[in-house]
Amino acid sequence: MLSNKTEIRVRYADTDKMQFVYNGKYFEYFEVGRSEMMRAHGFPYSQFENKGWQLPVLESYAKYKNYARYDEVLVIHAFVKEMPTLKVKIDYEITEKETGRFIAEGYTLHVFMRGEDKKAIRPPQEFVDALKPFYK
Amino acid sequence: MLSNKTEIRVRYADTDKMQFVYNGKYFEYFEVGRSEMMRAHGFPYSQFENKGWQLPVLESYAKYKNYARYDEVLVIHAFVKEMPTLKVKIDYEITEKETGRFIAEGYTLHVFMRGEDKKAIRPPQEFVDALKPFYK
Amino acid sequence: MLSNKTEIRVRYADTDKMQFVYNGKYFEYFEVGRSEMMRAHGFPYSQFENKGWQLPVLESYAKYKNYARYDEVLVIHAFVKEMPTLKVKIDYEITEKETGRFIAEGYTLHVFMRGEDKKAIRPPQEFVDALKPFYK
Amino acid sequence: MLSNKTEIRVRYADTDKMQFVYNGKYFEYFEVGRSEMMRAHGFPYSQFENKGWQLPVLESYAKYKNYARYDEVLVIHAFVKEMPTLKVKIDYEITEKETGRFIAEGYTLHVFMRGEDKKAIRPPQEFVDALKPFYK
Repeated sequence: MLSNKTEIRVRYADTDKMQFVYNGKYFEYFEVGRSEMMRAHGFPYSQFENKGWQLPVLESYAKYKNYARYDEVLVIHAFVKEMPTLKVKIDYEITEKETGRFIAEGYTLHVFMRGEDKKAIRPPQEFVDALKPFYK
Repeated sequence: MLSNKTEIRVRYADTDKMQFVYNGKYFEYFEVGRSEMMRAHGFPYSQFENKGWQLPVLESYAKYKNYARYDEVLVIHAFVKEMPTLKVKIDYEITEKETGRFIAEGYTLHVFMRGEDKKAIRPPQEFVDALKPFYK
Repeated sequence: MLSNKTEIRVRYADTDKMQFVYNGKYFEYFEVGRSEMMRAHGFPYSQFENKGWQLPVLESYAKYKNYARYDEVLVIHAFVKEMPTLKVKIDYEITEKETGRFIAEGYTLHVFMRGEDKKAIRPPQEFVDALKPFYK
Repeated sequence: MLSNKTEIRVRYADTDKMQFVYNGKYFEYFEVGRSEMMRAHGFPYSQFENKGWQLPVLESYAKYKNYARYDEVLVIHAFVKEMPTLKVKIDYEITEKETGRFIAEGYTLHVFMRGEDKKAIRPPQEFVDALKPFYK
């Protein structure tokens, strides 16, 4: 299956007065996770958009397990368990690199859209073909 | 039940290159919704924190229905359907003010924590007493 | 001259682990200040963009005087001291509403651009005419 | 002198509906630049804070030269031209990695503060000693 790990370092800007990463910030970390997952498999999202397709988010969910702190390095594991049909569900698991502490998990659900007129479309054949080898 | 509507206006900073509000931004709108809901019922979250309590987020979820655009005024409806026990679940519905267009819905799940040592605690009695009249 | 005051309330998301508003966040507050200033004078920035014009930022500057805290209401005063020629300089002063505490000041410098091809343009005549009455 | 280059990749969240990086976001990129500069010279800012010191921002300035786009890799050059006395001025230059396109420049001005009581202090001797070799 599609699966990739990437690292980010927590910025001061990401924290809030409770001393940890702000809850809404994780959805930005998820974005980094899925961007790098797509790049790692040969179809960076920027190219995807250049072909006239978009993958807007339909749903997003996060479950926070442990706090993440300023300057910690987080490992974002993004993976797609099932071959996408009309929708694409991407799962995420975030751990702190040094200690392996489990930080958060969650998912985002996406639909294919034509950039031009913002209409939902079926998964582009070219994209489906690129994915197939990962779901045999 | 606890329930309150508040308005925010979409900032340029909230949008992304897809032309609409960025998916992660909604969790900040949810924050505004619950802050104003708490204020409207007489216990602003800042006072809550001053008493040494915190309400960190355990889970958060959003379902996006329609795009929100720059400069639109959004109505954030925050409500707590059930009297909180160990956890507090807050629901949100966001609509666009002028057209009534449904934008997004979601929830956040919170636990009570002592600010000092970041330990989970039972809901403070003072808080429970303040809520009771809303759940008869 | 063009001049307008608007209020915003500091969100939890705006703070960082130093307990106050993050330095970069002020430029978003400035955006709110100039958006509301334009709206108050009859040409909201969204209409401005609908006519095919944009006002990108060339420079931005902030000087921080006192900390702003979570849940405080800030008054953002935006004003344009001189009739814009090729560029528009907008000044900002931010104070805390309850105590009048001076929080920050700064400016942004803008140029007129055609949205279509992102080329710098002279100030649109329609815009110049609308501004004239304020700079006699 | 203190000087360091670090790379960041533009996130979708960083862009706005004008298609480029939002003006206020650059101050977060500056933060990454100075954090990595401090780390590269042996005193990461997180350690700095653990010793009870803070380096709040007094002023910040950015001049935007060219747009930065989603998914581009930016090189953030942070440098301190003069040995800090009471204040520390950090300069930044941002270029796009692939083309070398100049994106933005700017600076932040900082003062030393005791974290405990938020009082301005003289630069800690330990910090001064660590910097001296770079300013002979």
